Amino acid sequence: MSTINEMLLNRGVTVEGIAEIVFLLQSPYNPVLTLEHCIESVQAVLQKREVQYALFTGIALDELAEQKKLPLPLQQILQKDEPLYGVDETLALSITHVYGMIGLTSFGYLDKLKPLILQKLNNKNNGIHVFLDDLVAGIAAAASARIAHNDPSAKRYDLPSF
Amino acid sequence: MSTINEMLLNRGVTVEGIAEIVFLLQSPYNPVLTLEHCIESVQAVLQKREVQYALFTGIALDELAEQKKLPLPLQQILQKDEPLYGVDETLALSITHVYGMIGLTSFGYLDKLKPLILQKLNNKNNGIHVFLDDLVAGIAAAASARIAHNDPSAKRYDLPSF
Amino acid sequence: MSTINEMLLNRGVTVEGIAEIVFLLQSPYNPVLTLEHCIESVQAVLQKREVQYALFTGIALDELAEQKKLPLPLQQILQKDEPLYGVDETLALSITHVYGMIGLTSFGYLDKLKPLILQKLNNKNNGIHVFLDDLVAGIAAAASARIAHNDPSAKRYDLPSF
Amino acid sequence: MSTINEMLLNRGVTVEGIAEIVFLLQSPYNPVLTLEHCIESVQAVLQKREVQYALFTGIALDELAEQKKLPLPLQQILQKDEPLYGVDETLALSITHVYGMIGLTSFGYLDKLKPLILQKLNNKNNGIHVFLDDLVAGIAAAASARIAHNDPSAKRYDLPSF
Repeated sequence: MSTINEMLLNRGVTVEGIAEIVFLLQSPYNPVLTLEHCIESVQAVLQKREVQYALFTGIALDELAEQKKLPLPLQQILQKDEPLYGVDETLALSITHVYGMIGLTSFGYLDKLKPLILQKLNNKNNGIHVFLDDLVAGIAAAASARIAHNDPSAKRYDLPSF
Repeated sequence: MSTINEMLLNRGVTVEGIAEIVFLLQSPYNPVLTLEHCIESVQAVLQKREVQYALFTGIALDELAEQKKLPLPLQQILQKDEPLYGVDETLALSITHVYGMIGLTSFGYLDKLKPLILQKLNNKNNGIHVFLDDLVAGIAAAASARIAHNDPSAKRYDLPSF
Repeated sequence: MSTINEMLLNRGVTVEGIAEIVFLLQSPYNPVLTLEHCIESVQAVLQKREVQYALFTGIALDELAEQKKLPLPLQQILQKDEPLYGVDETLALSITHVYGMIGLTSFGYLDKLKPLILQKLNNKNNGIHVFLDDLVAGIAAAASARIAHNDPSAKRYDLPSF
Repeated sequence: MSTINEMLLNRGVTVEGIAEIVFLLQSPYNPVLTLEHCIESVQAVLQKREVQYALFTGIALDELAEQKKLPLPLQQILQKDEPLYGVDETLALSITHVYGMIGLTSFGYLDKLKPLILQKLNNKNNGIHVFLDDLVAGIAAAASARIAHNDPSAKRYDLPSF
């Protein structure tokens, strides 16, 4: 049996590639952050069942679109990466949500600017990645939110005594 | 060219069938509500691009699962209607959201109780409807929220003069 | 310093009361489930920062409404528990999301039927709980999803070898 | 009675200021877009009850925080604009959703880069706008999605004949 990491690799995405995005997002706020820390956080996100199921679904749709096996008009919509199609963002959001809403901002930012590995996924010469580019952005945003939530220097707000 | 109504019909779902669910949800709060009014609201929801794209995607996944054309493990997950798979709820929520969050309660209620046409979709002898049963519940919840929002007797809260 | 449990208690909600809702939701699927197990799951949900921040916000709005300290028209909207106001559902959804989308169905179901402690919160004679009843339903749905995800008998779908 | 526009103005936000953000987002894709068109789209978003209710709630929380009338620890969280507090993003997302998920990317992008009027709202010397900066970003993202959805040159994907 292979792992979710191999499934991503098969689509041209490495855990390190996602971790580099996390580092880009979080290092301005966290001077001691290392790439290893980011890799560990991406791995933790990838272990979540919710995340795996979103990946299974989105990658299947990308692959079926490459093989021209989707019914019309969905086949056309994915082939053209129709900008008004929002199901890819919807799935990515379900990943980002797993570590709370603070990942939302990072997700949108990544989805707009497409840095690092997202650039490669977004290049139409490299196959159809309508879902995968958003899902990878969602994973990076979630892994980044996870680091922020686990930062021991993050303030805990206690309740006053009643 | 056929319409979204025909696509639904092809999967065993009529606009009237969805409208009956809307009537079930809204008639306790709206004594003058008619089934025709519910049909009109379902039709309005079905014209939304966001809704159509969610339907294209979910129905394609259901059909590909029936034809055993999905990659593993997604094929297994849909065949078993795996209870921890939440992508169907995620897609349905994107439909319900179009008329605001008040539809959320109706969606969950329908998804749990499966009244009327949802019962038929949920019967495994009638094909694979992992996505369609949730999407139909989402459409009914949205059409119901749309009626509530458009009700002329709904109170408008005005701002005080500053 | 007091805890989130005391904050809830101060508003008439016990962890046991929420756990009873979780038991109601999950016991049909899990014959060995105990109330203690449900209490432990509610406690885990209540430790999440995202959940605490939603509770701080919603309970503050409920309390300020009771004290008639909100600006108009928000004061009126909360006093009347305006059915088209959806901010309470929005906040509750952010809680439910923390354990994935499968909690969504439970949330809607609880929000419609208002079993157990939700009944008490929904009784207008017991103060204003526009937010708290939805937040408690969201916590119960999340704790229920957490139990389902952690169930050792839940199937894990492995990837085929490539 | 005053309008939602006056309520925003009272907090330093003009419809034109929001429309300028919409223009920034959409003009690269729409060469004939005018600022007037963006103003009209912002006005349409502001007429939605869901949007008004989110604004009433978020602005009330900002104002109560300025007046130091919120209970602890919420008062502290808003005063410090705590980065792990996500209720503001949650409310903003409920606005963006009204025109579908394609607004999500714009929302995150705006929330990260804070262009134009968002810069001013984000400056702590101008009062507390923990909610309002996200809500304005959400309105701009929704108004932008609305323009994209209504663009007559946007492709409609028809269904094939069955």
